[in-house]
Amino acid sequence: MSTGLGPIDNIAAELAKLPSIGRKTAQRLAYHIVSLPVEQVNALATALLEGRKTIRFCSECGNYATDEKCAICQNAERDHSQVCVVRDPRDVAAMERVHDYRGLYHVLHGVLSPMDGIGPGDINIKELLLRLRDDTVKEIIIATNPDIEGEATAAYIARLIKPLGVRVTRIAHGVPVGSDLEYADEVTLSKAIEGRRDL
Amino acid sequence: MSTGLGPIDNIAAELAKLPSIGRKTAQRLAYHIVSLPVEQVNALATALLEGRKTIRFCSECGNYATDEKCAICQNAERDHSQVCVVRDPRDVAAMERVHDYRGLYHVLHGVLSPMDGIGPGDINIKELLLRLRDDTVKEIIIATNPDIEGEATAAYIARLIKPLGVRVTRIAHGVPVGSDLEYADEVTLSKAIEGRRDL
Repeated sequence: MSTGLGPIDNIAAELAKLPSIGRKTAQRLAYHIVSLPVEQVNALATALLEGRKTIRFCSECGNYATDEKCAICQNAERDHSQVCVVRDPRDVAAMERVHDYRGLYHVLHGVLSPMDGIGPGDINIKELLLRLRDDTVKEIIIATNPDIEGEATAAYIARLIKPLGVRVTRIAHGVPVGSDLEYADEVTLSKAIEGRRDL
Repeated sequence: MSTGLGPIDNIAAELAKLPSIGRKTAQRLAYHIVSLPVEQVNALATALLEGRKTIRFCSECGNYATDEKCAICQNAERDHSQVCVVRDPRDVAAMERVHDYRGLYHVLHGVLSPMDGIGPGDINIKELLLRLRDDTVKEIIIATNPDIEGEATAAYIARLIKPLGVRVTRIAHGVPVGSDLEYADEVTLSKAIEGRRDL
């Protein structure tokens, strides 16, 4: 789907490498971008370059950070006795949008997946254990996704950490609030029954 | 929807200015971009900057070009007696994908729209008339969109050019090939009947 215009094709080719941007969308965006004021294109390019250069991993929790430690780990007002374990930095952003959780995080940067050859040494599990050396952390809340890999990872971490005397919990899975029972899939319904509580 | 990470928010804010990229998509892309190899982010930023810097307007037809004239206007094998009038450079790309048309183009960079204060002086109509000074061009094919502004623009250009003795035609509008009559809207059906031909 060449436009016959090299510079536009170059932009489209680079954009099409990004997730969820197909070749048609990439070409449409490329046409739009060359029609923008030079300042706006500069601002976009600078944001990309600066962003990639500035972002690093928090030495404590593995989340994205601009300093050696991320803003959450540096925040003394957060509850340092709770650590929520998630798969990647986007999950931290999702949890933070809720405003309910005031503890810290630990980003695994992946989940166990024997099919893809991802074992315990390939994700940040060792780093999680290191955080338990002093007795600050009292509870590990595992918030990996409720799929096969996420559940296996949760079970693996629980098995490692429980013997250390730290409480290990798993976020609840069930029928989403506001949704209809009729449309819930069987596994979710099964989880909802399994996780039932006394009223 | 701040992530608490300035560099990621900056990328997301710039991306969200592009058409069809909402705030959620922008944030997802921003997270993805900071996780990419530096080389790939550099390649994307360079494509954007170089593309915007290199692209200019063809002095003949107004299409995007990398030289003074676009590749189509420079191509001696194309039929220089036909000029297809379109709204913007993306329409040229759409026509070129068909491979059927071998004439030249004229890009108006807009259509007449009194509601938005866009009059004949605001789009490249004068430039079109200038191209008719020598007698090379024998036919003007107006391919603006079949909406109110596109039709008004087509009628306006036809009125200007017909007195000069140049043939003015309009692309056909009707039921799209492969679609179902049942699903065609009334205006399209009306156009299809209006444009009927003897068999």
